Amino acid sequence: MKERGLLIVLSGPSGVGKGTVRKEIFSQEDTKFHYSISVTTRKPRTGEVDGIDYFFKSRTEFESMIEQERLLEWAEFVGNYYGTPVDYVEKTLSEGKDVFLEIEVQGALQVRKAFPEGLFIFLMPPSLDELKNRIVTRGTESAEVIENRLQAAKEEILLMDAYDYVVENDQVQLACDRIKAIVTAEHCRRERVAPLYKKKISEV
Amino acid sequence: MKERGLLIVLSGPSGVGKGTVRKEIFSQEDTKFHYSISVTTRKPRTGEVDGIDYFFKSRTEFESMIEQERLLEWAEFVGNYYGTPVDYVEKTLSEGKDVFLEIEVQGALQVRKAFPEGLFIFLMPPSLDELKNRIVTRGTESAEVIENRLQAAKEEILLMDAYDYVVENDQVQLACDRIKAIVTAEHCRRERVAPLYKKKISEV
Repeated sequence: MKERGLLIVLSGPSGVGKGTVRKEIFSQEDTKFHYSISVTTRKPRTGEVDGIDYFFKSRTEFESMIEQERLLEWAEFVGNYYGTPVDYVEKTLSEGKDVFLEIEVQGALQVRKAFPEGLFIFLMPPSLDELKNRIVTRGTESAEVIENRLQAAKEEILLMDAYDYVVENDQVQLACDRIKAIVTAEHCRRERVAPLYKKKISEV
Repeated sequence: MKERGLLIVLSGPSGVGKGTVRKEIFSQEDTKFHYSISVTTRKPRTGEVDGIDYFFKSRTEFESMIEQERLLEWAEFVGNYYGTPVDYVEKTLSEGKDVFLEIEVQGALQVRKAFPEGLFIFLMPPSLDELKNRIVTRGTESAEVIENRLQAAKEEILLMDAYDYVVENDQVQLACDRIKAIVTAEHCRRERVAPLYKKKISEV
């Protein structure tokens, strides 16, 4: 009996630093998670490789994936589709490997429906003031956009009840350590491992 | 609102190495757990200090603690009582500190009744063969005693269903890392921290 991998979903409000935390985790040598490769209809940028950076598809192909329910979640941004292919996730989990998704809150809620047994981690800003600072220092948004984002963040924070864990992003390194600790701990959960041990005992 | 500390209960079959793992954890500088000081009727050994190594009590005092339900769990070994004082545990938890207990399986089941919200960690031998080796190499037991212990261990392993986590003691350092990861993860559990965050949001 082989332990199935864990689906780890990192999500959280806009501007909380999900991408930074994800990049830091995957820059660490001892990270054993597999990053879930997204499907997109966006054109490849220089150096991007199909099947490594993204699965590049046409709009027709993507829409047929939606129809066939082959996407765990999907969304449209600036005229392009982005989504998470269920086949890749399923295949990797069944090989006993942990799969890591970093997605927006709405996407995470879609994934929860298909994978209720996933590990849903909500990345929290240290405070809403801090979130405001982070949004402002990007320097690319108007005051109105910032205010809307803050309001949206407040609403998204109330969504944390749909998650299993809340990790504060006070320091990127600490946030990464906590996420890795959560995955280590989950691999020790009795419900998950007891069947494997009982089998072992029965063989002595 | 201050987060209450966690009660961490490490238990497992005889000979699995609970004491070794506990000593290793408390020898590490970054360990922030508080070791729960036991009450005993055994006489202090040279160098042992009341309130640090043990709370030393007379049999009459100990028996009155049993009657007054001031012990989370207790047992008698070789004519002496040993127990876990509920006052010390409660006081330390309410100060927001994590309390660590290392006890036998029967004691852990007693603690679970009083503290269902505790973190119950079952330390597993890598295999029953390995457990047998460990018992044998102690070299102080007869074959019959060993066989009885093995049988008891098999029965105790079936008790793992009463625990939250199962940690394999394949290597002491790895077991310690897993235990610490479990505590870190539990401090991020949404049910535990969501009320603290929601209060913070309401204050922005």
